[in-house]
Parts: sequence; structure tokens; C-alpha cells
Amino acid sequence: MKLSVNRLFDLLDAQATGPGASIARLLHQLAIGLGVLIMVMGTEPLWRAAYGRAMDIGFWTIAIFFTFEYVVRLALAPWAHRVHRGDPWRARWDWATSFLGIVDFAASWPVLAVAAGMAPDKAMLFGALWLAKLAPYAEAFELIGRVLKAARGPLTSLLLGFLTVLILSATLAHIFEGEAQPATFGTIRHSLWWAIVTLTTTGYGDATPQTTAGRMLGGFVMLSGIAVLAMWAGILATTFEDETRRRNFLKTWDLVSRVPFFEGLGASLIAEVARLLKPRKFYEGTAIMRSGEPGDCMYFIVSGQVGIQLAAKIVALGDGDFIGEMALISGAPRSATVTAQSDCELLELDLADFRDLAARHPELTAAIVTEAERRKS
Amino acid sequence: MKLSVNRLFDLLDAQATGPGASIARLLHQLAIGLGVLIMVMGTEPLWRAAYGRAMDIGFWTIAIFFTFEYVVRLALAPWAHRVHRGDPWRARWDWATSFLGIVDFAASWPVLAVAAGMAPDKAMLFGALWLAKLAPYAEAFELIGRVLKAARGPLTSLLLGFLTVLILSATLAHIFEGEAQPATFGTIRHSLWWAIVTLTTTGYGDATPQTTAGRMLGGFVMLSGIAVLAMWAGILATTFEDETRRRNFLKTWDLVSRVPFFEGLGASLIAEVARLLKPRKFYEGTAIMRSGEPGDCMYFIVSGQVGIQLAAKIVALGDGDFIGEMALISGAPRSATVTAQSDCELLELDLADFRDLAARHPELTAAIVTEAERRKS
Amino acid sequence: MKLSVNRLFDLLDAQATGPGASIARLLHQLAIGLGVLIMVMGTEPLWRAAYGRAMDIGFWTIAIFFTFEYVVRLALAPWAHRVHRGDPWRARWDWATSFLGIVDFAASWPVLAVAAGMAPDKAMLFGALWLAKLAPYAEAFELIGRVLKAARGPLTSLLLGFLTVLILSATLAHIFEGEAQPATFGTIRHSLWWAIVTLTTTGYGDATPQTTAGRMLGGFVMLSGIAVLAMWAGILATTFEDETRRRNFLKTWDLVSRVPFFEGLGASLIAEVARLLKPRKFYEGTAIMRSGEPGDCMYFIVSGQVGIQLAAKIVALGDGDFIGEMALISGAPRSATVTAQSDCELLELDLADFRDLAARHPELTAAIVTEAERRKS
Amino acid sequence: MKLSVNRLFDLLDAQATGPGASIARLLHQLAIGLGVLIMVMGTEPLWRAAYGRAMDIGFWTIAIFFTFEYVVRLALAPWAHRVHRGDPWRARWDWATSFLGIVDFAASWPVLAVAAGMAPDKAMLFGALWLAKLAPYAEAFELIGRVLKAARGPLTSLLLGFLTVLILSATLAHIFEGEAQPATFGTIRHSLWWAIVTLTTTGYGDATPQTTAGRMLGGFVMLSGIAVLAMWAGILATTFEDETRRRNFLKTWDLVSRVPFFEGLGASLIAEVARLLKPRKFYEGTAIMRSGEPGDCMYFIVSGQVGIQLAAKIVALGDGDFIGEMALISGAPRSATVTAQSDCELLELDLADFRDLAARHPELTAAIVTEAERRKS
Repeated sequence: MKLSVNRLFDLLDAQATGPGASIARLLHQLAIGLGVLIMVMGTEPLWRAAYGRAMDIGFWTIAIFFTFEYVVRLALAPWAHRVHRGDPWRARWDWATSFLGIVDFAASWPVLAVAAGMAPDKAMLFGALWLAKLAPYAEAFELIGRVLKAARGPLTSLLLGFLTVLILSATLAHIFEGEAQPATFGTIRHSLWWAIVTLTTTGYGDATPQTTAGRMLGGFVMLSGIAVLAMWAGILATTFEDETRRRNFLKTWDLVSRVPFFEGLGASLIAEVARLLKPRKFYEGTAIMRSGEPGDCMYFIVSGQVGIQLAAKIVALGDGDFIGEMALISGAPRSATVTAQSDCELLELDLADFRDLAARHPELTAAIVTEAERRKS
Repeated sequence: MKLSVNRLFDLLDAQATGPGASIARLLHQLAIGLGVLIMVMGTEPLWRAAYGRAMDIGFWTIAIFFTFEYVVRLALAPWAHRVHRGDPWRARWDWATSFLGIVDFAASWPVLAVAAGMAPDKAMLFGALWLAKLAPYAEAFELIGRVLKAARGPLTSLLLGFLTVLILSATLAHIFEGEAQPATFGTIRHSLWWAIVTLTTTGYGDATPQTTAGRMLGGFVMLSGIAVLAMWAGILATTFEDETRRRNFLKTWDLVSRVPFFEGLGASLIAEVARLLKPRKFYEGTAIMRSGEPGDCMYFIVSGQVGIQLAAKIVALGDGDFIGEMALISGAPRSATVTAQSDCELLELDLADFRDLAARHPELTAAIVTEAERRKS
Repeated sequence: MKLSVNRLFDLLDAQATGPGASIARLLHQLAIGLGVLIMVMGTEPLWRAAYGRAMDIGFWTIAIFFTFEYVVRLALAPWAHRVHRGDPWRARWDWATSFLGIVDFAASWPVLAVAAGMAPDKAMLFGALWLAKLAPYAEAFELIGRVLKAARGPLTSLLLGFLTVLILSATLAHIFEGEAQPATFGTIRHSLWWAIVTLTTTGYGDATPQTTAGRMLGGFVMLSGIAVLAMWAGILATTFEDETRRRNFLKTWDLVSRVPFFEGLGASLIAEVARLLKPRKFYEGTAIMRSGEPGDCMYFIVSGQVGIQLAAKIVALGDGDFIGEMALISGAPRSATVTAQSDCELLELDLADFRDLAARHPELTAAIVTEAERRKS
Repeated sequence: MKLSVNRLFDLLDAQATGPGASIARLLHQLAIGLGVLIMVMGTEPLWRAAYGRAMDIGFWTIAIFFTFEYVVRLALAPWAHRVHRGDPWRARWDWATSFLGIVDFAASWPVLAVAAGMAPDKAMLFGALWLAKLAPYAEAFELIGRVLKAARGPLTSLLLGFLTVLILSATLAHIFEGEAQPATFGTIRHSLWWAIVTLTTTGYGDATPQTTAGRMLGGFVMLSGIAVLAMWAGILATTFEDETRRRNFLKTWDLVSRVPFFEGLGASLIAEVARLLKPRKFYEGTAIMRSGEPGDCMYFIVSGQVGIQLAAKIVALGDGDFIGEMALISGAPRSATVTAQSDCELLELDLADFRDLAARHPELTAAIVTEAERRKS
């Protein structure tokens, strides 16, 4: 029995596949969205008055489900994850302290807060934390996380520098403006508010310097803010480029090893090709290329089956084949429409990269042509 | 008859060439600009009172023309585009659902709105949509579109993260400031307005936190806003660089294949050169280089004819020739003025790239010198 | 005696190692943080009234310690630094005019100000300068400094351009708005405040143009501000990338020369590897890799000792060995947990880089496999 | 006579060398700065009342000098510039329409305006244009200009897109908010002010949407503004990197050809070295390296003379020699202090680049060692 409940929650895994997985995922996302929407609307007196009861039922149903989800996931952690089979409590602890475990724990706060005696309409506000449950669905979140981690050294220094400028300028603003405007610059705590509003170039206007010295300081603070922002952008741009390249390479490399065609090429050429390929997914029934379009890429089929619509019949190709190479070699438009006959995983090779590769490695084009010929006959 | 109307609308194509094309293009752009200007000015009571009648005539003439243009383009879609000749309705559907079709449809809204019973001065506001008709004229729009498409993964994640921070901070602001300032933070909907104004560092100042907790939250939200902006910039910078490189390579590659001089070079060297060349257009009569200027590049002529003004006579060069190589090899200033004698398409090779290429591939310089000698004799 | 006092201050060096160094460092940082906090809180009348005496004692104790620290460091400069032994006054001068010397001098200002007759609660505000004493602790500060230095040419030009736009737009705003709003645009000095608030897109709203000409100018100034910011970011991103690459290479190169394994490889391959490795530090007792995790990197041990936890026993490896190579070669998860048995300095080789290297230099993988085999037997 | 006046104005050339040039340059810059300062201060009633006469004398002296400068430069254009000697009027026209000619013409506007009957205190405001005369002094201005030129395609498209979003959102804001706030959104012209203040995230707060639809539009406009800024930064970063690389290469290449040492290396290696070297200037008497410092670079002497301070004597080295190579090869600190004995032009080779080069091209290190040995004996 336990394993079938586990199966239920597996359905909610962001990367799960198989029948029902995408429906379960959709329901899960809808529940999150609906719950947060109710929470937002629940603070409107008019809405509360009109639909208060329906909103309460909807919200607390979702809240109880998420709390239940947390308990079950925690209980089943030893079965759900393939490691630490010997020690179920260690497995539970590991899951509970992982990112997903903490997020799922936070999702149970509305129920816990009510259980602890908080008023339901206050406890409802914890529903905003459910948004974090969406994180695993966005693949690129992980990439952004890796970028922040890789750039943490300079980013931290920048933040420290930012704080130093913040406190120094708040102190100076207090000195310059403190007497003229005691309400907004009378203490450094108040000055700090002005300083951060100015340093981030937000500029509410609720506190503005009026002495000449204060305004010169203000101008300098604004410029520093722009410099910090620019530097931040520079650091993130650099790191982002590096991480993207690295991540794509690993992803593609794994897929390349599953395409027999590449086996014949040397290891050095494979590494070069792997850096240029891009993984693409096509769902069943979608068109991969259309007859008459200009040919700007070719595809290698990692898994799945595609159908080439020729004059009279449909030719099926599958794992390890490639398509679209003719338009790249001849420069003519696509000669046939190709459709995915099942969910397909393809590797895309761009026209620009193909030409560059072909010029430096004529053996690659030769291998493609030979293979294409062999396939035809 | 039909084909000559088609000819008329071909004139409005952004990439059309031939007599009349550039004049038709200019008129089209003027009509768009004038129409939008009338719409903007039409909301000024003083202007309406003074020139109302003239403005109405101008605006509705343009509006009717654009509506007519849409109908004709739709009707002629099977003839205008070279595919799907067999099925005219499919061709029409394809055009109507393409970007250009949608833009042209939106351009007919002012007329459609009046036809549907809307007051003319309200319907006029749809004229703002005409601006979208300018898109095909800006070549680089396509590049920006490709960049956004290529970076859509991380950009979407970032937007999702942005929304999460937005809702979380609005909820917190509502908790911290809701009681102190019920008018601006009393509901999460109101708090959201503060949150987005702050997260984008716009800072109108119509809602500002006043409690210490609210201000600390505000400072954190501003910093997050800067971080998101910086990350966004980083992602776009990386993607932009990649797409530009790729697009330039393809453009140049097509042109390189039309210059006979390159045929003698190896495929690998051609690919390298193609990456360095930049396509340039010179209109008839403009000076390509002037005698006495420093020589910072050479040109390969893809199409068109140029005239070299020597002491006594003018020497004409045409497709496949190259000019400006002497200043690059000798380091001396330009020895002659060269003028385009017809619209010319050239490929520019920069001095820095030339020196680098020449050092690594002496055969290239040799080939250029040989060819130049041959030409002289 | 002198040398033992010197020893005391050595403990406060950011890079000091040995017993007590990290505790001394922590105390130093706490003193800075506490001092600045007291200074900030000291401007709040309520806090002053309640805890004024305690705050004074805390602040002035720290202030006197920092003043004492400066005097002693200055006196001991000839012994603390290994150069100029012959001339103690030159050594003192060199230290006093170095960045650290100036920072430490500024830290003594609160005491000096009181000594010079300033009121203690005013003098306290100089405590904000203590923040600068944190600079040496953040390694990446130096990197940011190098980036700013390397990019100073274009940054200065940009700043000059910024100033030109600032003064020109203030003059124009004065011309356009001066009569309509004499209080905020009546003199160029006042206009300048509007111009900088607008050019940095801060937008307090305390001065806004109201004439049409003034608003068009305003729009142009805002766009210029965005352009300057974008350019600034572009310049810093480029420079930052370059400096990071350069700095990492030097750091890694020094460490690589201490790993015997690399000696067997050719100089060219070493240079390539050095560019890819990343230095990492692990403190005693922390886990370097865990059994069952995916293997995304391998490590070369520069110094320190690690323990591999095999089924029954723990195998110790030390300087010059490498770990984690098996998961990279086989693609299987980590087969054992590895823990640092002392503070370790490792060089990390990422999976993506390893695969790329292995493809282009099969001799590297061969050398690693051979060495691993040798170690086992 | 004419040529000696020409000589006087040559002194004001940004790149002029020789006795008096730097003093003339300084005076010129001071005159610009003083003139602009007087103009700024001249709008302050208090200052005018106190120092009006002195300010007038100062300002108009400078104004008349700049007008006189323009006339003389124009008259002498045929002699000052080495081209078009045959046709003096063509030379004058060319100079008058060049960037410098236009800037110098604008500098004469204060005098021209008074001559044309404008009130002196109004005419004084044209003095702000004198700032443009500083442009030729900042070398990197030219680089920024080249970057903007190279990126003009995508930047223009982006600006067009910016304008489209601006007008569309102003129209929508007018529709949503026009009735609720007729004073700020009643006409599209007024809405446009809100739109640009919001799209650039300036956010004065003088116009803010209040309806829910208007606020949702506002949020979207702010996000678009951030996206445009990010894209702008991305485009400029990419272009800036490319232009910097290109410009440095050309500058260094010219200098490399003047160092005999490089002649012995192959052309391909020279091109590679030229990409890594950085040109540096040291004025007479400044220290190039100090004994005891870590050695992080070596220098090739392009022109000038340096003195190596050994134990007893000073060894002089000059054009074509190199210094600092020992610390790079051995890793030890600098063994001697080196001082510039005249204004020197050096080429710097960074430690990181040296190591990388040495690993891939052992012949370079060998050549340096051989040369160093030869020099000693």
C-alpha cells in the first residue's frame, strides 16, 4: 500500500513522466495558483463580504492537502529516494532539511498557525509561501541558483561595499541635513531610509536633501548606486555565460552518447560537436519542419519517432537517425514536412555551426552524406 | 489585373527593390507617422477645435487605406507568396495568422470599430496600433526577437521569480504597514502596487512604508529589484552576443560564396574569413574611401560597380574585385578616392582582422597581392 | 617584548593563520560592528536617554583601542613588514601612506576629534569610518579594485560625458522652466539638482518640468541616463571577465606547480589545465563528497589530508593525490564518502571541463587512470 | 607670420607634443572650466550682485578668445592640415564641417548672440557649449563613439521599439485614466509624460495611475523599461568588448613593429603577442618597478630610456630592450628598482599572459633568456 501512495506523490514530481504525471502536475500548479489568489483577494473587504465562505472552503482545502502532502512525503522519504535505505530516519532528516523539504514544510504553516491558535484570516497570509512550491517546475531556476553560487564571492564583496556606502552616506546626510530637517534626517536610522531609497535610485521623494552639501552628497550617492548596479550586472553576465555553456555541454554530451552516428567520429570532434548541439523536445503531433521553409538547422534523433511526409507515403525514422541535413548541404528550402509521431528528444545543429564545422572538418559532412545515402537505398 | 495590384503592394514590402520601391516605402512610413501624430494631437481640445475637420479627413483617409490594404493583401496572399499555390485558402490563413497578417489586421481596427458603432473619436485611439506596421522596416527587430526567443528559458524563470518576490513582499508589506496606512497597504491588491513600483526602482512616492519593519522590507525589495535587473541584463548580453555572431556569419557566408576570389582559398580559411567580414551597403554616388585618409579596412565587391579616381582617368571595378588592400599592406594613407557608381554590396575586412589573418595565413596576403598585380597589368 | 606585541597585531591581519588568528579576527570584526551600531543608535534620543552611559563606555573603549592599535602598528611598522629594514622611518612612512595605514588612521579620528575639543556626541559620528577596516577581510574587494583600475580610461570618459550632459541639460532646463518655476529652476545650481536626480533616473519628484519643452528635455535626459548606465555596465562586464580569468589563472598556476602529478604533462597542457582548475578550501571534518551523489567534479590535493570511507576502513590520501576521478570516468555516482582530515587546499576540475579535456588530450585521462591503478595496488 | 600663429594654435591640439604644449593645454582647459563656472554662478542673484563685474570681465574675455580662436583656425585650416593644399576654401569647408570645427563654432555663439542683439546675461548661457571643447582631450571618447557607431543598428531598433511602447502605453493610460484624472491623463500628450517617466523607471510621482487597469498597465510599462535597459546594456557590453580588443590590437601592433626583439619571432607568434601586450606611458623620473615588489609583468621599451639601479651603479637601457623578465621567469621579487630617465613608451606583458605564452611557445622564453644573457655579457 505504502508504495502506491508513494506513486501518487511521485506524480507531483517536477520531472516525473508516465501516464497521469502531467495532469497531476497541472492540478498541483492550479491548487498553488488558486490558493495564492484566494489569499490575495481575501484581504479585500468587498470580496470577503460577498464570497467569504467559498474562499475559506477553497483555501483551507488546499492548505490541508499541502499539510497532508508534507506529512506523507516525510513518512515516505526512505522509499521515495534511492539512498540511505538502511536508515529511514536519516533519509527523513535529509529530505526535511533539503530545499524541497523546507518548501513543503513552509506550505503547511497556514494549518500549523491555526492549530497554534492564530486567527484564520491572519494565518491565511502564510499562503504566500506556497509560491515557493513552483520553483522545481522552472528548470532555469536551478541555473540561476548556480550562477548566484558561482558569483557569490564578488557579489558578497559588492554587497559589503554597498552597506559601507549606505552607512557612510546616511551618517553624512545626518550631519548635513539633520538640523534643517529633523523629521527625516534627525537620526541615522531615518537617514538610512533616505540613503537606501537614493542608492537604489528608487527616489520616493519622501526625504530629499535641501542644503547644497546634502545635494552634492545625494548626487554622489546616486552615481554610486548606478555604479553598483552596473558592476552587479557585469559580474552576473560573466558568470551566467560560463554556467550556461557548462550546463549545456553536460546535457548534450549525455544525449550525444546515445546517438550511434557519432560513435564513428573521433573523441575530439565529438566534444566539439557536443558544445554546439542544443537539446530540443517536440511533443507528439507537432511539426518539426515544414516543406518550403528555409532550412536553418538539422536534427539528430535521440529518442522518439518522426514521420517524413513524402509525395505518396510517410517514411518513419527513429532513434539515432538524423533529419533536415539536405537543406543545410544544398541551401535549398525544406523538401518535406516532418512531424513527431511520439514525444521526441532531438539534438539541434544550427546552420551557422554546421557550416563552420563542415569547413573545418570535412569528414563530418562526408559521414552525414554517406549515412544519408545508405538510408535512402 | 490582379498581379499588377499585387505589384503595388509588393512595393510596400520592407525588402522590395526596384524603381518606385523606396518612394512607396517612404509614403507608407509617412502615412503611419502622420496617422499616429493626428491620433495623439486629436486628444488635445484646443487642436481639435482649431483643426478638427482636417485631422478627421487625414486620419480616416489613412485608416481606410490601411483597411483596404489588409483586404487586398489577404485576397492576394496565394499569389504574393510562393508556397501553397495549390490551396489559396490555406495560403490566406497562413498569412492572416503570421506576424505581418496580425499587424495588418490590427491596423484596420479604427475602421472596424466605427463600423461596429463606436464613436469615431474613441475609435481613433486604435490608430496607436499602426506603429506596429513599422516593425518590418527595422532589420534589427528580428535580431531582438531571436535573442528574446533564445533566452526565453532563463528570462521566464526570472519573471516567475520576480512575481514570487512581488507577491511575497506585497503580503509582508500588508502585514507590516496595513494597520498604520490602511489606504495604501490595507489590502494585498494595494500593497502589490507599492511592491511593483519599488521592485522596479520606479518609486513614485504615492505609497511608502513608514514602520521600521516596512522600511527594512522596502530596502530588501529595492535590492532585489536591482539584482533582477542586473541578471536580466546579464542573460540578454550573453544571448545577444551569440545571436549576433551567428547571424552575421550566415549573412556573410552567403555573400562570400559570390566572390570568385575566395574560391581559391581552402574551406577552413573561408569559414574563418566569413566570421570576420561585415556586409556593407553603399548607394550610388557615395564615396567609399577618400584619398589621404588612413586605411583602416579593405572591401570585397559582392555586387555593383565602383570607380577609382586616378590622376587622369577613372578605373571601374565590379563584382568579385576588391579595393583598399594597398593601404592595409603598406600602412600608407589611401592613394585614391573610390566612389560607388551603382548601388553596391561590399564585404568589409577590418585592419585589425586583416593583420591577424595575414600573420596566421600568409597565403591570404599572397593571394591578394597576386590578384592585385594581375589586375594592374 | 616588541615582537610579541607585533605578534598580537599580526593576529588581526586578514590573512593571518595559526592558533588564535581566527578568534582575534572575529573579535576585531565584532568590535567594528558593535562600534558602528552604537554610533547609529546613539543618534536616537530614546536610546540615548535609556542606555546613554553603556553606549558611551562601549564606543569609547573601542575608539581608544583603535587609536592605540594605530599607534602601535605605526611604531612596529619596521618589524612587521619585511622590507626597508635599514630605515625604520621610511618603513613607517610607507605604511602610514598605504591604504591600510590611512584606514587605521581614520579609525582614530573619534579620539583625535575629542582631543581637539569636539563634543563627544559629534565626534562619535566619525565611527562610521571604522567600516573601512572591514575591507581587507573581503578578498574580492581587491578584484573589484583591479577592475575599476583596468577600466578607468573609458569610465573616466563616461563620467566626463555624464558631467557634460548634466551641465548642458541643467542650463536648458533653466532656460525652459526658469520663469515658470523660479523656486526650483531659477538658477543653474537649482537646475543641476533636477538634472542629476533625473539623469540617474532617481526621480524624487521635488522638481519636475511643466512646460512642453522642459518635458521633452526631461525625456531626453532620462534616456541619456539609461544609456550611460547601460554603457557603464557594459564596460564593467567586459573588464570584470578579463580580470577574473587572469587572477584565477595566476592563483591556480601557483598551486598546480605543487602537485607532482602534473609534472609529467607537457607545459602546454599544464597551462590549459591551469585555466580550468578552481582552487577550493575545505576545513577539517567537512565532507568533500558523499557516497551516492552524482559525480560532477574531481579534486587534486594541493595540501592537507583526506580520508576515503570504504566499507571497512578509512584510506588516507594527502598532498599530490587526486580524488573523485572514478565517477567522472565511469559516469556512476560517487562510490565512497570523502572527508577532510585536516584543513585542505584542493584544485577542482569540473565534469564539463574534464570531458572536454579528455576528448582533446587522451593522454590526460590515461595518466589519471594509470596513477589511480598504481595507487590501488 | 601666418605659420607662427598656426604654431600657437597647434599648442592647443589635444595630441600636440613639444615645449609649451602641456602648459597651453592646461590653460585652455582652465579657461573652459572657468568660463562654465562663471556661467553657472552668473544665474545666482547673490553672486551677480556681489561679483557681477568681475564675472562679466572674466566670461567675455574667454568668450572673445574662443571666437578669435575659431576665426584664426578657420583661416589657417589650409596650412594646419596637410591635405587639399591646392584648394584652401575646400580645406576650410572640410574643417568647418568636421566635429572639431562645429564645436569651435558653437564656442563662438555667446559673442555672436550679443552681436546679434541678445541680452548679455542670456547670451552667457551659450557658454555651456564650451564643455564640448573638452571632448578631444579624453582619448576614450573616441572609443565610446566607435562603440555607439558599431552598435547603431540594434540600438536604433531598440529605440524604435521604445517609442512604440511609449506611444501605445500613453494611449492606453489615456483610455484607462483619462476620465478619473483629466489633469494628468486627459490628453495623450500629458499621458506621454507619465509614460516616459515610468518607462525609464524615473518615477517622479507627479502623475500616477489610480484605477486597477491603469496600475496593471503601469506595472507592465515598468517591466518593459527594465527589459529595454537590460537589452541596451547587453548590446553595448558586447560591442564594447569587440571594439576594445580591436583598437588595442592596432595600437600595439604599430608599437611592436618598432621593437627589434620581435623581428626574430614568426609572424603568427607576433600577432598573438600583439593581442596580449598593453601600451603604457611613464613620465621622466617615475619608478617603473621597485626592488622587493612581486613581479607581475615585464616591459618592452618602444622609446625612451630607463635606468636600472644596481648595487653600485645605474645601468641604462633604451629602445628595443626589455626589463622585468627575471622576476617572471624565476618567480622571485624584483631584484632592482627601475626608473624612467626620459618620457618612455613601454609595452607591458602581464604575468598570466606570459606564463600562458611561455607554455605554448617555449621559443619565446628561450629568446628572452638568450637576449638577457647576451645583454649581461
